[in-house]
Amino acid sequence: MIIDCHGHYTTAPKSLEDWRNRQVAALGHPADMPRVSDLVISDDELRESVETNQLKKMRERGSDLTIFSPRASFMAHHIGDFAVSSTWASICNELIYRVTKLFPDQFAGVAMLPQSPGVRPETCIAEIDRCVREYGFVGINLNPDPSGGHWKEPPLSDRWWYPIYEKMVEYDIPAMVHVSTSCNACFHTTGAHYLNADTTAFMQCLTSNLFKDFPTLRFVIPHGGGAVPYHWGRFRGIAQDMKLPPLTEHLLKNIFFDTCVYHQPGIDLLLKVIPDDNILFASEMIGAVRGIDPYSGHEYDDTRRYIDGARELTEAQRSKIFETNARRVYPRLDAQLKARGH
Amino acid sequence: MIIDCHGHYTTAPKSLEDWRNRQVAALGHPADMPRVSDLVISDDELRESVETNQLKKMRERGSDLTIFSPRASFMAHHIGDFAVSSTWASICNELIYRVTKLFPDQFAGVAMLPQSPGVRPETCIAEIDRCVREYGFVGINLNPDPSGGHWKEPPLSDRWWYPIYEKMVEYDIPAMVHVSTSCNACFHTTGAHYLNADTTAFMQCLTSNLFKDFPTLRFVIPHGGGAVPYHWGRFRGIAQDMKLPPLTEHLLKNIFFDTCVYHQPGIDLLLKVIPDDNILFASEMIGAVRGIDPYSGHEYDDTRRYIDGARELTEAQRSKIFETNARRVYPRLDAQLKARGH
Repeated sequence: MIIDCHGHYTTAPKSLEDWRNRQVAALGHPADMPRVSDLVISDDELRESVETNQLKKMRERGSDLTIFSPRASFMAHHIGDFAVSSTWASICNELIYRVTKLFPDQFAGVAMLPQSPGVRPETCIAEIDRCVREYGFVGINLNPDPSGGHWKEPPLSDRWWYPIYEKMVEYDIPAMVHVSTSCNACFHTTGAHYLNADTTAFMQCLTSNLFKDFPTLRFVIPHGGGAVPYHWGRFRGIAQDMKLPPLTEHLLKNIFFDTCVYHQPGIDLLLKVIPDDNILFASEMIGAVRGIDPYSGHEYDDTRRYIDGARELTEAQRSKIFETNARRVYPRLDAQLKARGH
Repeated sequence: MIIDCHGHYTTAPKSLEDWRNRQVAALGHPADMPRVSDLVISDDELRESVETNQLKKMRERGSDLTIFSPRASFMAHHIGDFAVSSTWASICNELIYRVTKLFPDQFAGVAMLPQSPGVRPETCIAEIDRCVREYGFVGINLNPDPSGGHWKEPPLSDRWWYPIYEKMVEYDIPAMVHVSTSCNACFHTTGAHYLNADTTAFMQCLTSNLFKDFPTLRFVIPHGGGAVPYHWGRFRGIAQDMKLPPLTEHLLKNIFFDTCVYHQPGIDLLLKVIPDDNILFASEMIGAVRGIDPYSGHEYDDTRRYIDGARELTEAQRSKIFETNARRVYPRLDAQLKARGH
């Protein structure tokens, strides 16, 4: 089985975006605020939106199940207040839930949180409860920068975030650390902000004792870990200079990298420097990078080809990266799969 | 000849730091502000500070000349106002100049600029003039984020920065795009902020027509280009999706990467994906990553070993990376070397 741990619902029906635009336009004008019930999306619309997109590509590329969450760039936690984020997260998560009910063998749900700049993270607990208990979601996306590129929250190692971690430990669910749209003109969203956030989150963990406080907490760092594997020697050296344990002990029981790196040399590096227990297959399809790479003749984000093309990988390693690591990091997914006979 | 294009004066005599501490302590108390003349550093002190450090390692490692600039993390442009930055830059640049006079065959100077948050970049012109004309410096360090991790200036592609670029073109000098200390708790200075800034700067250039306006402008992106080479497929794909020309045409006449990547697999990736005309040897010694890598038995930042160890590199390519690319990107250095018979 091939599990893609990083897919967003980037192809949701247009009416979702229209509703969000109305919500954003109504900021400061409560009377104009759209009602949740104004948004009506049929099962047929949902079905079509994934069948002609994600499911089509999953079949073509040969992946079996996608861990699926609301569109990352649309989370836009910097817009409005907690109430705005809360309504928006609730709508987006419900759509993911409906997709997982329509295609239970192909999609497992991950929740976006109703984060809002400066608002205490414990306000997200109710949504986590709902998504895990009622929707059967297997993880969350945690945004380390709800300000959208201004980086005003404390680092992930700060106690500020602990209520979320306590909940994650209770449910035994991981978080993918994933920012949203940048509203800082310095940072291109998918070309800079996403990658920077990955590197930043890793370094926040490195310089802290977070995983002493939460030995079973698990973060998936997306986009191949930002700059981390490429600079693995730098990080090892910085940790060593700080008299920290080796990174394998200090961080790699808790931190995992996905394979959203869109060329063979990048994937080869990732596989070379990061232990195979810490790499989870992912494509972020259909996402930031669309189109066909003229060098390979295949789509940039068809990352399965790079894993298949990694010559030094054994079948046992490939199996970890494609399946068993994801089942270990997302135990609720593993339980669902086992219940279905996988 | 082996030219290291990225060295900072991290080993300056302690009295420099003491003076700076007095300057910072006097912020808001003009009567306490130290005078420039309070700082007295003898030639012997300067000599010792580099002979026992940079020069020693250059001899051990077999590099010949270092392009040398003030300590990056000490620029701290976010502290104080333009007057504070101006005095501090002037002091630091003069020390670099004195080092280049004491060891003209081993060091070429690069200027830090008296940047200050929100202050127009043309205020830096006088210092550039002084450093190039009087000190014979061969380049500048340009900080894209003088706020120190809050990213409040416009992107490098904005006309805000054009006065600096006009000066760079006039003198035919490149800029290394290099941030300083982060005062944002989210960003570890050398583990996150530096690498993020590299990726950010590259993406700011990618999404702009900056090099149409300045066809001869040259940026060196340090730290191996941040996350860029590792995610080269991502950047190629994003550019393609934006209908931009291939990155080789769009950016690589103007952007160069150094080799400050502290393990063999990272350097191998850099050499594989970035054309050899765009890679400049560098170590950032003595800098962010000190200590011996237990895997190699050598210092992390002894990057010459990785270039020597890159098996697929031809001697002609090695020669470009070690010498001729630097002489092309820093023509004023080339002229100085030629005048000395090299």
